[in-house]
Amino acid sequence: MKTIGILGGMGPLATADLFRKIVILTDADSDNAHIPIIIDNNTEIPDRTDYIIKNGKDPTNHLIRSALRLEMMGADVIVMPCNTAHYFYNEIVKHIKIPFINMIVETAKEIKKIYPGIEKVGLLATEGTYKTGIYDKIFSNYDLELVKPDDNDQRFVTELIYSIKKGNYDIDLTNFKKVLNKIKNQNINALILGCTELPVAFQMFDIDEVYIDPTKILACSAIKYVGKKVKNA
Amino acid sequence: MKTIGILGGMGPLATADLFRKIVILTDADSDNAHIPIIIDNNTEIPDRTDYIIKNGKDPTNHLIRSALRLEMMGADVIVMPCNTAHYFYNEIVKHIKIPFINMIVETAKEIKKIYPGIEKVGLLATEGTYKTGIYDKIFSNYDLELVKPDDNDQRFVTELIYSIKKGNYDIDLTNFKKVLNKIKNQNINALILGCTELPVAFQMFDIDEVYIDPTKILACSAIKYVGKKVKNA
Repeated sequence: MKTIGILGGMGPLATADLFRKIVILTDADSDNAHIPIIIDNNTEIPDRTDYIIKNGKDPTNHLIRSALRLEMMGADVIVMPCNTAHYFYNEIVKHIKIPFINMIVETAKEIKKIYPGIEKVGLLATEGTYKTGIYDKIFSNYDLELVKPDDNDQRFVTELIYSIKKGNYDIDLTNFKKVLNKIKNQNINALILGCTELPVAFQMFDIDEVYIDPTKILACSAIKYVGKKVKNA
Repeated sequence: MKTIGILGGMGPLATADLFRKIVILTDADSDNAHIPIIIDNNTEIPDRTDYIIKNGKDPTNHLIRSALRLEMMGADVIVMPCNTAHYFYNEIVKHIKIPFINMIVETAKEIKKIYPGIEKVGLLATEGTYKTGIYDKIFSNYDLELVKPDDNDQRFVTELIYSIKKGNYDIDLTNFKKVLNKIKNQNINALILGCTELPVAFQMFDIDEVYIDPTKILACSAIKYVGKKVKNA
Protein backbone atom coordinates (compact mmCIF):
# COMPACT_ATOMS: atom_id res chain seq x y z
CA MET A 1 0.00 0.00 0.00
CA LYS A 2 1.15 3.57 -0.72
CA THR A 3 2.43 5.68 2.18
CA ILE A 4 1.26 9.20 3.02
CA GLY A 5 3.92 11.63 4.29
CA ILE A 6 2.71 14.47 6.49
CA LEU A 7 4.93 17.56 6.48
CA GLY A 8 3.82 18.79 9.89
CA GLY A 9 4.56 20.81 13.00
CA MET A 10 2.79 23.97 11.75
CA GLY A 11 1.32 23.67 14.32
CA PRO A 12 1.57 20.31 16.08
CA LEU A 13 -2.11 20.22 17.11
CA ALA A 14 -3.19 20.88 13.50
CA THR A 15 -0.87 18.03 12.43
CA ALA A 16 -2.50 15.69 14.98
CA ASP A 17 -5.88 16.86 13.64
CA LEU A 18 -5.01 15.89 10.04
CA PHE A 19 -3.61 12.53 11.17
CA ARG A 20 -6.77 11.74 13.17
CA LYS A 21 -9.02 12.84 10.29
CA ILE A 22 -7.20 10.54 7.83
CA VAL A 23 -7.63 7.59 10.22
CA ILE A 24 -11.28 8.30 11.10
CA LEU A 25 -12.22 8.89 7.44
CA THR A 26 -10.47 5.80 5.99
CA ASP A 27 -12.75 2.89 5.19
CA ALA A 28 -10.69 0.14 6.90
CA ASP A 29 -11.75 -2.79 9.06
CA SER A 30 -8.47 -3.59 10.86
CA ASP A 31 -5.13 -1.98 11.81
CA ASN A 32 -3.57 -3.60 8.73
CA ALA A 33 -6.21 -2.20 6.36
CA HIS A 34 -5.28 1.36 7.37
CA ILE A 35 -2.90 3.59 5.42
CA PRO A 36 0.81 3.66 6.33
CA ILE A 37 1.60 7.25 7.31
CA ILE A 38 4.92 8.89 8.12
CA ILE A 39 4.77 12.16 10.01
CA ASP A 40 7.53 14.71 10.40
CA ASN A 41 6.21 16.96 13.16
CA ASN A 42 9.00 19.44 12.48
CA THR A 43 8.61 22.14 15.10
CA GLU A 44 11.83 23.86 14.03
CA ILE A 45 10.22 25.37 10.92
CA PRO A 46 10.17 29.16 11.50
CA ASP A 47 6.73 30.82 11.70
CA ARG A 48 5.46 31.41 8.15
CA THR A 49 3.49 34.57 8.93
CA ASP A 50 6.44 36.07 10.84
CA TYR A 51 8.60 35.64 7.73
CA ILE A 52 5.98 37.02 5.35
CA ILE A 53 4.86 40.08 7.28
CA LYS A 54 7.64 40.79 9.81
CA ASN A 55 10.87 39.87 8.06
CA GLY A 56 11.31 36.84 10.36
CA LYS A 57 13.46 33.77 9.65
CA ASP A 58 12.98 32.10 6.27
CA PRO A 59 11.25 28.70 6.58
CA THR A 60 11.94 27.58 2.97
CA ASN A 61 14.97 25.34 3.58
CA HIS A 62 13.37 23.75 6.64
CA LEU A 63 10.30 22.89 4.57
CA ILE A 64 12.42 21.40 1.78
CA ARG A 65 14.45 19.32 4.27
CA SER A 66 11.24 17.92 5.81
CA ALA A 67 9.78 17.07 2.41
CA LEU A 68 13.02 15.31 1.40
CA ARG A 69 13.17 13.45 4.70
CA LEU A 70 9.63 12.14 4.12
CA GLU A 71 10.56 11.10 0.58
CA MET A 72 13.68 9.31 1.81
CA MET A 73 11.65 7.49 4.47
CA GLY A 74 9.41 6.05 1.79
CA ALA A 75 6.49 8.45 1.48
CA ASP A 76 4.70 8.18 -1.88
CA VAL A 77 2.87 11.48 -1.58
CA ILE A 78 3.17 14.57 0.61
CA VAL A 79 0.47 16.57 2.36
CA MET A 80 1.07 19.67 4.51
CA PRO A 81 -1.48 20.78 7.10
CA CYS A 82 -0.61 24.51 7.09
CA ASN A 83 -2.34 26.94 4.74
CA THR A 84 0.24 29.72 5.03
CA ALA A 85 3.10 27.30 4.25
CA HIS A 86 1.49 26.69 0.84
CA TYR A 87 3.10 30.00 -0.17
CA PHE A 88 6.31 27.91 -0.41
CA TYR A 89 4.60 25.05 -2.29
CA ASN A 90 6.25 25.68 -5.68
CA GLU A 91 9.70 25.93 -4.12
CA ILE A 92 9.26 22.64 -2.21
CA VAL A 93 7.93 20.83 -5.30
CA LYS A 94 11.13 21.71 -7.22
CA HIS A 95 13.19 19.61 -4.77
CA ILE A 96 11.17 16.41 -4.53
CA LYS A 97 10.33 13.55 -6.86
CA ILE A 98 7.03 12.48 -5.29
CA PRO A 99 3.67 14.24 -5.73
CA PHE A 100 2.59 16.89 -3.22
CA ILE A 101 -1.18 17.42 -2.86
CA ASN A 102 -1.96 21.16 -2.66
CA MET A 103 -4.52 21.74 0.12
CA ILE A 104 -5.72 25.07 -1.28
CA VAL A 105 -6.30 23.68 -4.80
CA GLU A 106 -8.16 20.69 -3.30
CA THR A 107 -10.32 23.08 -1.26
CA ALA A 108 -11.25 25.19 -4.32
CA LYS A 109 -12.10 22.04 -6.32
CA GLU A 110 -14.20 20.58 -3.51
CA ILE A 111 -16.14 23.84 -3.06
CA LYS A 112 -16.96 23.93 -6.78
CA LYS A 113 -18.00 20.27 -6.60
CA ILE A 114 -20.30 20.48 -3.57
CA TYR A 115 -21.71 23.96 -4.31
CA PRO A 116 -21.60 24.28 -8.14
CA GLY A 117 -23.26 27.72 -8.32
CA ILE A 118 -21.19 29.32 -5.58
CA GLU A 119 -19.59 32.74 -6.12
CA LYS A 120 -18.56 34.32 -2.82
CA VAL A 121 -16.79 32.49 0.00
CA GLY A 122 -15.64 33.86 3.33
CA LEU A 123 -12.01 33.20 4.27
CA LEU A 124 -10.62 33.20 7.78
CA ALA A 125 -6.82 32.86 7.78
CA THR A 126 -3.54 34.24 9.08
CA GLU A 127 -2.24 37.63 7.97
CA GLY A 128 0.53 35.71 6.21
CA THR A 129 -1.99 33.81 4.09
CA TYR A 130 -3.80 37.04 3.09
CA LYS A 131 -0.61 38.97 2.36
CA THR A 132 0.77 36.33 -0.03
CA GLY A 133 -2.50 36.10 -1.95
CA ILE A 134 -2.20 32.29 -2.23
CA TYR A 135 -5.95 31.77 -1.82
CA ASP A 136 -6.76 34.68 -4.19
CA LYS A 137 -4.57 33.31 -7.00
CA ILE A 138 -5.94 29.78 -6.80
CA PHE A 139 -9.56 30.73 -6.13
CA SER A 140 -9.74 33.19 -9.05
CA ASN A 141 -8.97 30.23 -11.36
CA TYR A 142 -12.20 28.69 -10.07
CA ASP A 143 -14.21 31.95 -10.35
CA LEU A 144 -14.56 32.19 -6.60
CA GLU A 145 -14.53 35.60 -4.90
CA LEU A 146 -13.12 35.81 -1.37
CA VAL A 147 -14.54 37.86 1.49
CA LYS A 148 -12.04 38.62 4.29
CA PRO A 149 -12.15 40.46 7.61
CA ASP A 150 -10.86 44.07 7.61
CA ASP A 151 -7.56 44.82 9.37
CA ASN A 152 -9.25 45.77 12.62
CA ASP A 153 -11.27 42.56 12.77
CA GLN A 154 -8.35 40.40 11.64
CA ARG A 155 -6.61 40.77 14.99
CA PHE A 156 -9.33 38.68 16.67
CA VAL A 157 -8.85 35.92 14.08
CA THR A 158 -5.06 36.09 14.60
CA GLU A 159 -5.58 36.03 18.37
CA LEU A 160 -7.62 32.81 18.20
CA ILE A 161 -5.10 31.11 15.87
CA TYR A 162 -2.10 31.99 18.02
CA SER A 163 -3.91 31.07 21.25
CA ILE A 164 -4.15 27.51 19.92
CA LYS A 165 -0.46 27.62 18.93
CA LYS A 166 0.36 28.93 22.44
CA GLY A 167 -1.60 26.10 24.09
CA ASN A 168 -3.93 28.65 25.66
CA TYR A 169 -7.36 27.04 25.46
CA ASP A 170 -9.10 29.43 27.86
CA ILE A 171 -10.20 32.06 25.38
CA ASP A 172 -12.95 34.71 25.34
CA LEU A 173 -14.63 34.22 21.96
CA THR A 174 -16.96 37.25 22.04
CA ASN A 175 -15.01 39.41 19.58
CA PHE A 176 -14.16 36.51 17.30
CA LYS A 177 -17.84 35.60 17.03
CA LYS A 178 -18.68 39.22 16.09
CA VAL A 179 -16.14 39.00 13.25
CA LEU A 180 -17.68 35.70 12.15
CA ASN A 181 -21.14 37.29 11.98
CA LYS A 182 -19.86 40.30 10.05
CA ILE A 183 -18.33 37.98 7.43
CA LYS A 184 -21.47 35.87 7.24
CA ASN A 185 -23.57 39.00 6.62
CA GLN A 186 -21.68 39.78 3.40
CA ASN A 187 -23.70 37.43 1.19
CA ILE A 188 -21.19 34.61 1.28
CA ASN A 189 -22.24 31.10 0.23
CA ALA A 190 -19.71 29.29 2.40
CA LEU A 191 -17.04 29.96 5.02
CA ILE A 192 -13.50 28.55 4.79
CA LEU A 193 -11.47 27.97 7.93
CA GLY A 194 -8.26 28.72 6.03
CA CYS A 195 -5.80 28.15 8.86
CA THR A 196 -5.39 24.61 10.24
CA GLU A 197 -5.66 25.86 13.84
CA LEU A 198 -9.23 27.07 13.15
CA PRO A 199 -10.98 23.69 12.68
CA VAL A 200 -9.10 22.60 15.83
CA ALA A 201 -10.51 25.64 17.68
CA PHE A 202 -14.04 25.20 16.27
CA GLN A 203 -14.09 21.57 17.48
CA MET A 204 -12.50 22.38 20.83
CA PHE A 205 -14.96 25.18 21.63
CA ASP A 206 -17.99 23.57 19.95
CA ILE A 207 -18.50 26.62 17.73
CA ASP A 208 -21.79 25.83 16.07
CA GLU A 209 -21.23 26.96 12.49
CA VAL A 210 -21.32 25.37 9.07
CA TYR A 211 -17.86 25.68 7.59
CA ILE A 212 -15.46 24.31 5.02
CA ASP A 213 -12.52 22.53 6.60
CA PRO A 214 -9.46 22.33 4.30
CA THR A 215 -7.84 19.82 6.71
CA LYS A 216 -10.76 17.42 6.21
CA ILE A 217 -10.73 17.98 2.44
CA LEU A 218 -6.98 17.26 2.38
CA ALA A 219 -7.52 14.09 4.45
CA CYS A 220 -10.09 12.83 1.91
CA SER A 221 -7.86 13.71 -1.07
CA ALA A 222 -4.92 11.84 0.49
CA ILE A 223 -7.06 8.76 1.25
CA LYS A 224 -8.29 8.64 -2.35
CA TYR A 225 -4.80 9.31 -3.75
CA VAL A 226 -3.41 6.16 -2.13
CA GLY A 227 -6.31 4.12 -3.47
CA LYS A 228 -8.43 3.76 -0.34
CA LYS A 229 -12.10 4.65 0.06
CA VAL A 230 -13.40 7.49 2.20
CA LYS A 231 -15.78 6.16 4.84
CA ASN A 232 -19.49 6.70 4.20
CA ALA A 233 -18.62 8.74 1.09
CA MET B 1 15.81 19.91 21.04
CA LYS B 2 15.56 16.12 21.26
CA THR B 3 13.17 14.29 18.93
CA ILE B 4 10.57 11.73 20.02
CA GLY B 5 10.02 8.76 17.69
CA ILE B 6 6.60 7.11 17.84
CA LEU B 7 6.54 3.46 16.73
CA GLY B 8 2.88 3.46 15.77
CA GLY B 9 0.10 1.98 13.72
CA MET B 10 -1.08 -0.44 16.46
CA GLY B 11 -3.69 0.90 15.99
CA PRO B 12 -3.62 4.17 14.05
CA LEU B 13 -6.24 5.88 16.23
CA ALA B 14 -4.27 5.00 19.38
CA THR B 15 -1.17 6.45 17.67
CA ALA B 16 -3.05 9.69 16.93
CA ASP B 17 -4.19 9.68 20.58
CA LEU B 18 -0.60 9.51 21.90
CA PHE B 19 0.54 12.22 19.48
CA ARG B 20 -2.30 14.54 20.54
CA LYS B 21 -1.64 13.86 24.24
CA ILE B 22 2.06 14.74 23.88
CA VAL B 23 1.14 18.03 22.16
CA ILE B 24 -1.66 18.98 24.58
CA LEU B 25 0.44 18.09 27.66
CA THR B 26 3.63 19.90 26.57
CA ASP B 27 4.23 23.25 28.23
CA ALA B 28 5.02 25.27 25.07
CA ASP B 29 3.96 28.75 23.99
CA SER B 30 4.54 28.56 20.21
CA ASP B 31 4.88 26.00 17.40
CA ASN B 32 8.69 26.25 17.74
CA ALA B 33 8.62 25.54 21.50
CA HIS B 34 6.94 22.19 20.87
CA ILE B 35 8.79 18.86 20.66
CA PRO B 36 9.95 17.54 17.25
CA ILE B 37 8.20 14.20 16.77
CA ILE B 38 8.63 11.60 14.04
CA ILE B 39 5.84 9.08 13.65
CA ASP B 40 5.95 5.80 11.79
CA ASN B 41 2.29 4.82 11.58
CA ASN B 42 3.27 1.38 10.34
CA THR B 43 0.01 -0.38 9.59
CA GLU B 44 1.82 -3.39 8.09
CA ILE B 45 2.80 -4.75 11.52
CA PRO B 46 0.85 -8.03 11.95
CA ASP B 47 -1.67 -8.15 14.81
CA ARG B 48 0.19 -8.90 18.06
CA THR B 49 -2.63 -10.82 19.72
CA ASP B 50 -3.19 -12.94 16.59
CA TYR B 51 0.46 -14.01 16.73
CA ILE B 52 0.44 -14.70 20.47
CA ILE B 53 -2.79 -16.65 20.75
CA LYS B 54 -3.61 -17.85 17.24
CA ASN B 55 -0.26 -18.62 15.60
CA GLY B 56 -0.66 -15.59 13.30
CA LYS B 57 2.18 -13.80 11.46
CA ASP B 58 5.18 -12.80 13.55
CA PRO B 59 5.37 -8.99 14.01
CA THR B 60 8.93 -8.97 15.46
CA ASN B 61 10.87 -8.00 12.32
CA HIS B 62 8.32 -5.35 11.38
CA LEU B 63 8.68 -3.78 14.82
CA ILE B 64 12.49 -3.82 14.59
CA ARG B 65 12.40 -2.23 11.12
CA SER B 66 10.13 0.56 12.36
CA ALA B 67 12.33 1.24 15.38
CA LEU B 68 15.44 1.37 13.17
CA ARG B 69 13.70 3.63 10.68
CA LEU B 70 12.82 6.07 13.48
CA GLU B 71 16.43 5.95 14.73
CA MET B 72 17.79 6.60 11.22
CA MET B 73 15.40 9.54 10.80
CA GLY B 74 16.87 11.18 13.86
CA ALA B 75 14.69 10.08 16.78
CA ASP B 76 16.49 10.36 20.14
CA VAL B 77 14.04 8.15 22.03
CA ILE B 78 11.33 5.68 21.08
CA VAL B 79 7.84 5.26 22.48
CA MET B 80 5.29 2.67 21.33
CA PRO B 81 1.55 3.16 21.92
CA CYS B 82 0.56 -0.53 22.01
CA ASN B 83 0.56 -2.52 25.26
CA THR B 84 0.58 -5.98 23.64
CA ALA B 85 3.56 -5.04 21.43
CA HIS B 86 5.60 -4.54 24.62
CA TYR B 87 5.94 -8.34 24.65
CA PHE B 88 8.56 -7.75 21.92
CA TYR B 89 10.24 -4.87 23.81
CA ASN B 90 13.45 -6.75 24.72
CA GLU B 91 13.91 -8.00 21.17
CA ILE B 92 13.47 -4.49 19.67
CA VAL B 93 15.86 -2.96 22.23
CA LYS B 94 18.64 -5.35 21.11
CA HIS B 95 18.62 -3.79 17.62
CA ILE B 96 18.62 -0.07 18.39
CA LYS B 97 21.10 2.37 19.89
CA ILE B 98 18.64 4.92 21.27
CA PRO B 99 16.58 4.54 24.47
CA PHE B 100 13.07 3.07 24.32
CA ILE B 101 10.67 4.12 27.08
CA ASN B 102 8.69 1.09 28.32
CA MET B 103 5.03 2.10 28.71
CA ILE B 104 4.21 -0.71 31.15
CA VAL B 105 7.15 0.07 33.46
CA GLU B 106 6.21 3.77 33.39
CA THR B 107 2.61 2.86 34.27
CA ALA B 108 3.68 0.73 37.26
CA LYS B 109 6.02 3.51 38.51
CA GLU B 110 3.34 6.18 38.13
CA ILE B 111 0.74 4.09 39.98
CA LYS B 112 3.16 3.60 42.91
CA LYS B 113 3.90 7.34 42.89
CA ILE B 114 0.33 8.63 42.85
CA TYR B 115 -1.18 5.88 45.05
CA PRO B 116 1.71 4.81 47.35
CA GLY B 117 -0.32 2.31 49.42
CA ILE B 118 -1.99 0.62 46.47
CA GLU B 119 -2.08 -3.19 46.25
CA LYS B 120 -4.72 -4.36 43.78
CA VAL B 121 -5.29 -2.87 40.36
CA GLY B 122 -7.79 -3.89 37.70
CA LEU B 123 -6.41 -4.50 34.22
CA LEU B 124 -8.41 -4.37 31.01
CA ALA B 125 -6.34 -5.52 28.04
CA THR B 126 -6.21 -7.78 24.98
CA GLU B 127 -5.99 -11.55 25.34
CA GLY B 128 -2.48 -11.25 23.89
CA THR B 129 -1.41 -8.97 26.73
CA TYR B 130 -2.80 -11.38 29.38
CA LYS B 131 -1.36 -14.49 27.75
CA THR B 132 2.20 -13.11 27.61
CA GLY B 133 2.10 -12.02 31.24
CA ILE B 134 3.94 -8.77 30.43
CA TYR B 135 1.92 -6.77 32.96
CA ASP B 136 2.21 -9.55 35.59
CA LYS B 137 6.01 -9.70 35.37
CA ILE B 138 6.53 -5.94 35.59
CA PHE B 139 3.80 -5.26 38.15
CA SER B 140 5.00 -7.99 40.54
CA ASN B 141 8.31 -6.07 40.78
CA TYR B 142 6.26 -3.18 42.18
CA ASP B 143 4.19 -5.39 44.54
CA LEU B 144 1.04 -4.75 42.57
CA GLU B 145 -1.55 -7.48 42.19
CA LEU B 146 -3.65 -7.54 39.01
CA VAL B 147 -7.37 -8.26 38.77
CA LYS B 148 -8.53 -9.37 35.31
CA PRO B 149 -11.86 -10.35 33.73
CA ASP B 150 -12.58 -14.08 33.46
CA ASP B 151 -12.55 -15.71 30.00
CA ASN B 152 -16.27 -15.27 29.52
CA ASP B 153 -16.17 -11.55 30.35
CA GLN B 154 -12.99 -10.97 28.36
CA ARG B 155 -14.83 -11.33 25.06
CA PHE B 156 -16.70 -8.05 25.71
CA VAL B 157 -13.40 -6.25 26.36
CA THR B 158 -11.95 -7.77 23.18
CA GLU B 159 -15.08 -6.79 21.27
CA LEU B 160 -14.75 -3.13 22.31
CA ILE B 161 -11.02 -3.02 21.45
CA TYR B 162 -11.49 -4.57 18.00
CA SER B 163 -14.55 -2.40 17.25
CA ILE B 164 -12.27 0.63 17.54
CA LYS B 165 -9.66 -1.07 15.32
CA LYS B 166 -12.45 -1.88 12.84
CA GLY B 167 -13.61 1.74 12.77
CA ASN B 168 -17.01 0.67 14.10
CA TYR B 169 -17.99 3.40 16.55
CA ASP B 170 -21.63 2.37 16.90
CA ILE B 171 -21.29 -0.07 19.78
CA ASP B 172 -23.69 -1.39 22.44
CA LEU B 173 -21.74 -0.95 25.69
CA THR B 174 -24.17 -2.77 28.03
CA ASN B 175 -22.11 -5.96 28.45
CA PHE B 176 -18.80 -4.11 28.61
CA LYS B 177 -20.13 -1.92 31.43
CA LYS B 178 -21.23 -5.04 33.37
CA VAL B 179 -17.66 -6.39 33.09
CA LEU B 180 -16.32 -3.02 34.28
CA ASN B 181 -18.56 -3.17 37.36
CA LYS B 182 -17.58 -6.75 38.16
CA ILE B 183 -13.89 -5.75 38.11
CA LYS B 184 -14.54 -2.67 40.23
CA ASN B 185 -16.34 -4.80 42.84
CA GLN B 186 -13.19 -6.86 43.49
CA ASN B 187 -11.60 -4.37 45.92
CA ILE B 188 -9.31 -2.79 43.36
CA ASN B 189 -7.68 0.57 44.11
CA ALA B 190 -7.39 1.65 40.48
CA LEU B 191 -8.30 0.51 36.99
CA ILE B 192 -5.77 0.36 34.14
CA LEU B 193 -6.94 0.72 30.54
CA GLY B 194 -4.14 -1.58 29.37
CA CYS B 195 -4.85 -1.46 25.65
CA THR B 196 -4.32 1.83 23.80
CA GLU B 197 -7.72 1.52 22.07
CA LEU B 198 -9.46 1.67 25.47
CA PRO B 199 -8.71 5.30 26.44
CA VAL B 200 -9.75 6.18 22.85
CA ALA B 201 -13.06 4.34 23.42
CA PHE B 202 -13.60 5.83 26.90
CA GLN B 203 -13.15 9.36 25.49
CA MET B 204 -15.23 8.66 22.38
CA PHE B 205 -18.17 7.25 24.33
CA ASP B 206 -17.81 9.55 27.38
CA ILE B 207 -17.53 6.56 29.71
CA ASP B 208 -17.63 8.23 33.11
CA GLU B 209 -15.04 6.30 35.06
CA VAL B 210 -11.82 7.10 36.92
CA TYR B 211 -9.04 5.20 35.21
CA ILE B 212 -5.31 4.99 34.66
CA ASP B 213 -4.34 5.76 31.09
CA PRO B 214 -0.94 4.30 30.09
CA THR B 215 -1.00 6.42 26.88
CA LYS B 216 -1.16 9.61 28.96
CA ILE B 217 1.53 8.35 31.34
CA LEU B 218 3.75 7.53 28.34
CA ALA B 219 3.12 11.00 26.87
CA CYS B 220 4.25 12.63 30.14
CA SER B 221 7.35 10.40 30.41
CA ALA B 222 8.36 11.24 26.84
CA ILE B 223 7.87 14.99 27.41
CA LYS B 224 10.07 14.87 30.52
CA TYR B 225 12.66 12.65 28.82
CA VAL B 226 13.33 15.27 26.13
CA GLY B 227 13.68 17.96 28.79
CA LYS B 228 10.33 19.72 28.44
CA LYS B 229 7.81 20.41 31.21
CA VAL B 230 4.41 18.78 31.47
CA LYS B 231 1.68 21.42 31.42
CA ASN B 232 0.08 22.21 34.78
CA ALA B 233 2.12 19.44 36.40
